[in-house]
This record gives sequence, C-alpha cells and structure tokens, in this order.
Amino acid sequence: MTEPVLNYIAQNQARFEDELKALLRIPSVSAQSKHDGDTHRAAEFLAARFQRMGMQVDLVPTAGHPIVLAEWCGAPGKPTVLVYGHYDVQPPEPLEEWVTGPFEPTVRDGKIYARGATDDKGQMLTHVNSAEAWLKTHGRLPLNVKFIIEGEEEVGSVNLDPFVRQHEDRLRCNWVVISDTSMFAPDVPAICYGLRGIAYFEVVIRGPNQDLHSGGYGGMVANPANVLCTLLASLKDEQGRIQIEGFYKDVLPLEDWERQAIRQLNFDEAELRSRLGIDELVGEAGFSPLERKWARPTCDICGLYGGYQGQGSKTIIPARAGAKVSFRLVPNQKPSDVAAAFRTHLESRLPPGVRLEIKAYHDAPPVLVPVKSPGVAAAQRAYRAGFGRDPVFIRNGGSIPVVSTFREVLGVDCLLLGFGLPDDNTHSPNEKFNLRDYHRGTLTSAQLWQELGGISVASRSLA
Amino acid sequence: MTEPVLNYIAQNQARFEDELKALLRIPSVSAQSKHDGDTHRAAEFLAARFQRMGMQVDLVPTAGHPIVLAEWCGAPGKPTVLVYGHYDVQPPEPLEEWVTGPFEPTVRDGKIYARGATDDKGQMLTHVNSAEAWLKTHGRLPLNVKFIIEGEEEVGSVNLDPFVRQHEDRLRCNWVVISDTSMFAPDVPAICYGLRGIAYFEVVIRGPNQDLHSGGYGGMVANPANVLCTLLASLKDEQGRIQIEGFYKDVLPLEDWERQAIRQLNFDEAELRSRLGIDELVGEAGFSPLERKWARPTCDICGLYGGYQGQGSKTIIPARAGAKVSFRLVPNQKPSDVAAAFRTHLESRLPPGVRLEIKAYHDAPPVLVPVKSPGVAAAQRAYRAGFGRDPVFIRNGGSIPVVSTFREVLGVDCLLLGFGLPDDNTHSPNEKFNLRDYHRGTLTSAQLWQELGGISVASRSLA
Repeated sequence: MTEPVLNYIAQNQARFEDELKALLRIPSVSAQSKHDGDTHRAAEFLAARFQRMGMQVDLVPTAGHPIVLAEWCGAPGKPTVLVYGHYDVQPPEPLEEWVTGPFEPTVRDGKIYARGATDDKGQMLTHVNSAEAWLKTHGRLPLNVKFIIEGEEEVGSVNLDPFVRQHEDRLRCNWVVISDTSMFAPDVPAICYGLRGIAYFEVVIRGPNQDLHSGGYGGMVANPANVLCTLLASLKDEQGRIQIEGFYKDVLPLEDWERQAIRQLNFDEAELRSRLGIDELVGEAGFSPLERKWARPTCDICGLYGGYQGQGSKTIIPARAGAKVSFRLVPNQKPSDVAAAFRTHLESRLPPGVRLEIKAYHDAPPVLVPVKSPGVAAAQRAYRAGFGRDPVFIRNGGSIPVVSTFREVLGVDCLLLGFGLPDDNTHSPNEKFNLRDYHRGTLTSAQLWQELGGISVASRSLA
Repeated sequence: MTEPVLNYIAQNQARFEDELKALLRIPSVSAQSKHDGDTHRAAEFLAARFQRMGMQVDLVPTAGHPIVLAEWCGAPGKPTVLVYGHYDVQPPEPLEEWVTGPFEPTVRDGKIYARGATDDKGQMLTHVNSAEAWLKTHGRLPLNVKFIIEGEEEVGSVNLDPFVRQHEDRLRCNWVVISDTSMFAPDVPAICYGLRGIAYFEVVIRGPNQDLHSGGYGGMVANPANVLCTLLASLKDEQGRIQIEGFYKDVLPLEDWERQAIRQLNFDEAELRSRLGIDELVGEAGFSPLERKWARPTCDICGLYGGYQGQGSKTIIPARAGAKVSFRLVPNQKPSDVAAAFRTHLESRLPPGVRLEIKAYHDAPPVLVPVKSPGVAAAQRAYRAGFGRDPVFIRNGGSIPVVSTFREVLGVDCLLLGFGLPDDNTHSPNEKFNLRDYHRGTLTSAQLWQELGGISVASRSLA
C-alpha cells in the first residue's frame, strides 16, 4: 500500500472512531416510525461526510428512507467499484439486556458496543474511511468508486430493488463490494464466496368452521393440527434429507477443494454447542456442520400455531392450524422451482376433510462468486496487507437478496469482505464490533482500491 | 304413572317454567369472580326450593362455590337414588352473538334461550320438579332421593371429588341419576350408557437456548418445531390408527348389538358436514362415524405453538415448540397406562439435539354402564311414559369425570338421562332448551322414581 495512505489511516484512527461513534449515536431504527427523523438524520450525516471528502453526493428520496449515493469517478479507463451498505439498524429491544445504552457507543476491552456497531455502520465506514484516506493523500482514488448506502435493509429493502433496476446506468460497475458478513473467527479474515437463497411460506390447514369439542367430534372430524404435523413431518426423512420430489435436482455439489478447505478451518463445535446450550449438532447425514450450513439446503419450521396455546388444557379440535416454513437454498436451486415442488408435495398428500392454503412470502436466489476471478485475487492481496495473513474462503448460510439483484441487473459479482465476528450479537442486545478489526478493515479496503484499480478493464470480471 | 302426579305436573307447567326462568336469571358464572355473589345466590335459590318442597337441605361451603345437598329419606327399605347436577354456567361471552341477553331467558318457537338453559339448570330442574310433584301429591316419594348439586362443574369440579370421597356414607345410594347429556335427536330420547375417558398432556420440545437465525444455523441445529411435528405425526398412521405400542390392548370391542343399534340410528351425516363446513367426515378405518365417536379412542392435537406466529415472515429456528395433546379413551383403557405408553413412544423416538418435556394435565377413566341392569330397564320404562316411545341407547364422546368417581367411591352405576339436544349450543352463544322436552323430562323423572322404587333392594344394581 502506498505509504501516505497507510500513514493517514494510522494518524486518523482516533477520528475514525469518533466518526463511527457519532453515527452510532443516531438511533436510525428503520422499523420504528418514531425514529423516522433519526433515520433521515443518519442519511444526512453520511451525505455530509461524503461531501467533506470531495465526493459528489445525492440524497435520493424513496417511498421510505432515503438512499445515499456518492461517487468519485475521476479515473477514466480504470475499473469502477460499487460499495453497498446500509445506515439503518435493527430495533434495540429488549433494552434492559444492554450493559450500556444501545445508542451510547461505549468501548470495553477494545470493542465498541452499540446497535449498528457491526451491522452495518462500522463495517460500512471502513470503505468510507479508506476512500477518504486516498482522496486526502493523493487527491484521487486508484479507481472509480460509487457508494450506495440504503436505510431500509432491516425492513426488507423494499425500495432498493426497484431503484437498482431503474438506475442500471448510474450504478454500472465492475464489482460490488459489501462488508455485511463476518470473519470466520477472531484474527481469521474471510472472503465470503457464497450465500444461500431462501423461499419462505406459510401453510394453513383449515377444517371445521369453528373449534369443536374434542369429545363431541374427536374421531369423526379431521383435526387440522394433526394434519399439519403429518404434512410437515413428511418434508424430511430421519437422515435429514428433504423428501420433496426433485428438491435436490439442481443442487451444485461441493467441489473437492471446498470440502478440503472447510476441513482445514478450525471450526469449534464444542464452543458452539456450549454457547447454544445443546448437546449435539445435527443435520443431513454425510456432511459436516459447516458443509450443511453453507452448501446444503434446509427446511426449517420458523413458526407453528393452532388451537389452544394458553395455560392448562382446553379440549378442542382447532378450526385451523398453520406454520411458517423457510427453505434455505443453495446454488443452483431456483426459488420458483422449490415453491412449485413444495406445493405439489403438500397437495398430493392432503388427506380428506381439510383444506390447504399456501402463502408465499419473500424469496431470494442463492449466490456463488467464482473464487478464481481477478477481483477475488485482488481482495486476497488486500487482506494480506490489512490483516497480515491470507483470508480463508467461507460461505454464508444466510441470504443478502440485493446481491443477486446486483448480479442480475448489473451483471457483476459481489466481493463480500466481512470484518465483523460471528458472536457480534447482530440483531441482539449488546451488539459490538472489534475496533482493531475496524482499523484492519479500513487498511484492507484502502489496499483493495489499489489492487482492483490495477486490474485492466479488459480482464474485468463481467462473467 | 300415578294420576295425581301426572296431573300436578300438567297443572304446574307454567310455574315450572317460571322457576326455570328465575334460576336462569341468576348469572352464576363460576369461572368469573365478579359473579361469585350470583353463583352463591343460585345455590341459595335451590336450597330454598328444596326447603319449600319439604326436603332436608344443607348448603355445604367449599374452598370454592357451595354444594347443595338435599335429601328425602322417608322410604326405609326402599332403594336410594342420588341425583347429580350443577347450578353453575359457562361464561356467556361473546355477548354480541346472543340474540337476547344470556341472563334474560326468552322463549322463541317453544325453546327457552339463556346461558344454562340446557347445561345444566333446565335438565337438572326436571328432577327437582318431579320430586316436588310426588311430595306435594303423595306426601312422599316412592324411594329415597338425595340431590347433590355443585357450583363448579364448569371449572373442573375441583372441590367435588374430595367431597364425594369424604362423604361416602352420606351419599350412599343404589344409583346415581344425571341429566347433563342429550337426546340423540329431536323426539328421540336416549339413555347414555357409555362415556369416553380422557388423558391430556402438553409436550414441549426444547432446542437451543434462544431463537436462532435460520440462515446462520439452519442445517446444523435441530429445529424443535420440526422435531415436534415429526413426533406428533408418528402418533397415527394413514388409516387413523394410533401407533403407540399397546394403545389398543385394553380396548373393549363394540358388541354386535351395539353396532347393530348404531346402524339403526338415523344419523344425519350430511347435516353434520354442512353445519361444520367440511366436505367429509374422517377417522379410523373400519368404523362408522358414531362408532368412532362413541367407542374408539382418539388422539387430537388441541393446540400447537412455537416460534414466530405474527404477520409475514421471521427467519428463525425456534428455541422451543409445544403441543397440547388429548386422548379420548374408551372402556377398558386406563389413563395411567396410556400416559406411560405415550411417554415411552415419544422418548424412544426423540432424535438427538433436543430435550423433551411432557406435562400431564387432567385425566378421567372411561365409563360403561351395563345396559341389562334393572336400573336401566326402569329408565326405559320411565322414558316410555314420559316421551311415549322407547329411548335409544347411545354413548357420549366426551367425559363426565364425576361419573367414574361415583362408580369408584359409591360402587354404583349412573343412569345418564339426557333431555337436551345436540344443537343446544352448550358453551356457545344462544344456548337453548326445548320447553317441551323440559316437561317430558319432568314426566320421565317422575315415572323413574316410581320404577326405581319398585326394584327390590336385593336385586339392586351394585355390580
């Protein structure tokens, strides 16, 4: 990395922390309308920061919270990178479980505690800091950089997707860079090259038009709760294999190098079991826990309801029972195929005497980034500079729907550089971010601009 | 029936209706403490009535609502009958669904509408009326009669069972008579000779110590909701047969005469399907709907819960999931055997990674009254006098726990004479009771005293 940039980052470490604290103090809770003013203020805070850095800024209003667009495109002929992040945060509740207030950023033991510390204010700012370091030391960046920072990630990004589709030209780039995942473990930086997709449904079984006395009707009338359990139980066998016909037909098997790389990761099963309070990790036979989490699809019941749930007993046949069912999908499964197969599975097994209703909620396709691309190689070199060691390759069990939107609309891959840790309490009380990783992330990002800027546009990854 | 008793009942028909209305106006809702005064008032109302009839009365306080004990034992050497009933009623809510107020008894089309009309004030009063008719016309009854009328039937009879056990001598009798069931259909009176028992449980499956992100952990961690569904689905096969080992071992098969008698009943399946809004009645293969309801055990999930039940989606693996499970039992199944077999079934199928918790709530053994007994023959003759036709023999799919307590403590059978109808809206808005059946029930009861009184104590049914 160029010496001046490195020095600038070192000299401004304290101020970068102050900038983070100032942003963390803004309770930009997108889900709570009482915080709408705060959420807007966070967008303005970022816009001002980009302006001070000398970038061109646009605060784009949406039907919800604004999108902050900032760009510096003074490197004609050089590649362009689009940095995605979000300035909104999850609700801080339950408040009583926070050691210090969620919007009073506090440093303990080298970690900064506040809602949004890691998700995504802290991680996102690494790229802002690094761009500033380049601009302030060289008056330029080694490539063109665009930032798109939204304020609705925690409420489903409802306005982002149409915005991306409508502003394809404005967002055109060679790579998208996102830091909203995490490292593999402390001091083990990681490039995430795969995300699972998702397909989420609600299944409702309806029987009689009202709850019935289980003595007066039990044995004569189909019980929607029993039917629901039987249908849901039919989704998996005892080995954890999903029984929906054709469910695995498009599943891309793990490659040899992946299984080998996963085996070499120092995955601490005992620590995980103890943290979760369970005696055993379980799942599909024939795969290790990380393989199952990263590269195998799942079927999880996220919610169950029906009949009497209060204290004690009530002897009824419930009129209806329902479940929320989520499938995590892996490359190359298609959410629409899974939805159709799921429906066929349930409909063909529906016993008489009840009716079936399936509501489809959100879905997102899985994502796989080619690891042999020049962009990924550049990210590896950047990590080496920022963390002094090679990153490992990991996948992520969750979904970031916008990644596949970028892939689809802009035709480019995402570089997913996580600087957080798996135990950062994302979405939970006492969210934190290690300040050392905040700085190493900033260094990594600064180097990434250099590395990506050196790739000739002819060889850019536009597969 | 003796002419004077018959005449007395005919002449006092209007007053008997007034007595019923007066009792129905008292909102003796045992479950609601705001009505504690009313509930006590209902007990006093009955005590005063018994006193006016010339019976010895005792208003017995309990930890809850009082028990009304009344007796006339002026027929030494004659049999003794114990009449059980309850003066408390279900809560009237939802109030807006009542055509007329639940405690403003109103006659429409020959039916009296009010909470408690059939359950159990109206049915119970038939026996009070008939005892009065005998006492006022003959100064005596043709046998000894004891009334035990409680005020906690709708809240689990918690104080009745210990009272019966502690006052065995005081309650000693040759038969118990209860009118808290129903006729088979309009103009088809019925003697109920069997009740199903019950065993009620809550099953809870616990996994991780908190809800987990289904992306971050799905595939690695056992999902309590999936496990729960699989365990519950394992309880029945596709033919509706319960799969718990030994579950049917004590089940008494239907006798030939019973299957024949059930076939001869004019059971209107289409009416039932239409009333319940379902397209098909279902259940255990090889049995008709009434056979399944009356003489076959069931396993019904009465409640299901776990994870996210709100609007839309939440992608979690729930920390726990649970179900309320009720078994209806038939002669000669024992609730304790079923509880043990159920536990074994679940424990032996519990997969790794989760914990199982089973809570046992209430249970009651099934009841079968020998239909060839002199008491039942007497009841048949009484019905012939009261309704001008033979009663049919039916069973009841529900449970009346006190019946087996009487059987166990007093060693006698119950005569279950229902005067209500299956569509009387028991426990629902617009509860009703047909006034014609109120009067026919009173006549039947008056004749029953005569018939039972004629049975020599030597041949009394104390099997």
